[in-house]
Amino acid sequence: MVEQQKQKDPAQKGTVIAGRNAVQEALRAGRAIDSVYVARGTPSGTLSALVAKARKAGAVIKEADPRKLDFLCGGANHQGIVAMAAAKEYASLDDLFTLARQREEPPFFVILDGIEDPHNLGAILRTAECAGAHGIIIPRRRAVGLTYAVGKASAGAVEYLPVARVTNLADAMDELKKRGVWIYAADMDGKPWCTVDYTGPAALVIGKEGAGISRLVKEKADFTVSLPLLGNIQSLNASVACGVLCYEIARQRQGLPVWNKN
Amino acid sequence: MVEQQKQKDPAQKGTVIAGRNAVQEALRAGRAIDSVYVARGTPSGTLSALVAKARKAGAVIKEADPRKLDFLCGGANHQGIVAMAAAKEYASLDDLFTLARQREEPPFFVILDGIEDPHNLGAILRTAECAGAHGIIIPRRRAVGLTYAVGKASAGAVEYLPVARVTNLADAMDELKKRGVWIYAADMDGKPWCTVDYTGPAALVIGKEGAGISRLVKEKADFTVSLPLLGNIQSLNASVACGVLCYEIARQRQGLPVWNKN
Repeated sequence: MVEQQKQKDPAQKGTVIAGRNAVQEALRAGRAIDSVYVARGTPSGTLSALVAKARKAGAVIKEADPRKLDFLCGGANHQGIVAMAAAKEYASLDDLFTLARQREEPPFFVILDGIEDPHNLGAILRTAECAGAHGIIIPRRRAVGLTYAVGKASAGAVEYLPVARVTNLADAMDELKKRGVWIYAADMDGKPWCTVDYTGPAALVIGKEGAGISRLVKEKADFTVSLPLLGNIQSLNASVACGVLCYEIARQRQGLPVWNKN
Repeated sequence: MVEQQKQKDPAQKGTVIAGRNAVQEALRAGRAIDSVYVARGTPSGTLSALVAKARKAGAVIKEADPRKLDFLCGGANHQGIVAMAAAKEYASLDDLFTLARQREEPPFFVILDGIEDPHNLGAILRTAECAGAHGIIIPRRRAVGLTYAVGKASAGAVEYLPVARVTNLADAMDELKKRGVWIYAADMDGKPWCTVDYTGPAALVIGKEGAGISRLVKEKADFTVSLPLLGNIQSLNASVACGVLCYEIARQRQGLPVWNKN
C-alpha cells in the first residue's frame, strides 16, 4: 500500500513498493522492477496475474517467508507482495551495440558471470565506464541486479553505462559471436592478459567472486586471459581484475605505447 | 574488564579490549593495538600513564563520549578506556626493504595517502600482494589502520604483506628516496601510466578516496602517472586504480611482452 525508503539494511536500501495496488501501479507506470517478493503460502491464484505481469516486465520473482516481506517493507501492509524498484532501467543487447556505433568504436562489453556483491557490481560499472566500455551484460538469475546499493557504489556510472540483463548468458554469448564479437574469459591457465589483441569487437567475461567463470560460459569464450598471481593469495577481487583487463583494452585501443626493456 | 567480540557494527568488528586491567595486560603482552578510546571527562591523571604507554606502543588515541565506549564494548564496564586490537602487527620500513632483499627483487612498495575505507585498504592489500609488492606504507593519522574489517577484506593478504604505519608520510618518502626508491604518484595530468619505467626500486602513491593525493606528498614524488578516464565519471576507485598500476609494474618486472598494433 505504501511506497517508502527502507533504512535498516543498507545492502537492500532503495525504493520498496509494498502491496498489490502499489505494485500494480508501478508496473502500469512502466517503472523498472528489480525483483518481486511473494509471501510463501499466499493462496495461489490471488496474486498470479500480478506476478505474471511483473515477470513479463523483467522482474525476478522470489518466494519468501511472510516475515521477510514484513521486514523488507518495515511492517507495512504488503498483502503478500513486495517489489524492489531498480535503480535504473535495463538496456537490451541492441542498446549496447548502438552505443558502440554512436561512438564509432568497435564494441567493448563486459559480461559478468554471476557477480553477487552489489559493491563489486557497482565498482565494475564505474571501472568499465572509465575505461570506455559500451555496456555490461549480467544474467537475470543468481546475480545482483541494478539495486540502489549498486547504483551508489557505481559513483554515478549507472547513469551512463547501459546494463543488459539476459535470461541465459550462454545464449547471449552466442548472439554476440554471431554479431562478430570476440569473447575473452578472465580465468586461470590462459595467456598473459597483455599479450592478446583486444582491438576488434570484444567482450570480457569476469567470473563470480570465489567460484570464477562457469564451465559452459568458459567453453563459449574464444580466448582465456590470465593475470599472474605473484604472491600467496590465490585470487584477485573481481572489480580489480576487471579494472586491470579493461585498462589493457583501453591502452590498446588508444594506441598508447608501453615502456619495455630493450 | 572483558575481552569480547563486538558484533553489532561490522565496520568495527574485531577484538575489543575494555577496562584498565585488560588494556594494561594487552600492552604488557605486546599485543598490537590499533586505537584506544578514552572517555571524555575522565579525571585527568588516572588514565594518563596507561594512555602514554599505549601511545608509545603505536596506538592512535581518541577521546570520545562515554556512550561511544559503552557501545564499542557492548556495555561492559570499561572504566573509561577501550582498546581496539589490530588484526596484525605493523611492520617497520626496514621490514619492507628486508622482504624485497630476501626475494632478490628491487623494492616495490605502495604508499597510501589517507585511505579511510577499510574495504579499500583491504582490497589494496590483496591486490598489491597478488602483484608482487613487498609492503604497504600508511600514515598513522586520518587513515584506517589494520582493523579486523581490513584484514577480512584483504582475503588473507594481511598475513603476508607487511604494512608500515608512519607518523609522517613526507618524512617516510624522504627516507625512501635516500635509500634509492623512485616515487610515482597516481594523479591527474601525469604521463600515461604504461609509458614509465618502474623496474627500479619503486613506490607507488595512491591518494585518498575523493580528495586524491595531498599537495605535499605529490611534490615529493619523482613522477606523476595517470590513467585516462574515457567516460563521464571523473575518478576510479582507489583499489582499482592501484590494481591497474600494480599490474603494469608487475608486467614490466616479469618482462611480459605486450600486444601492439604494428
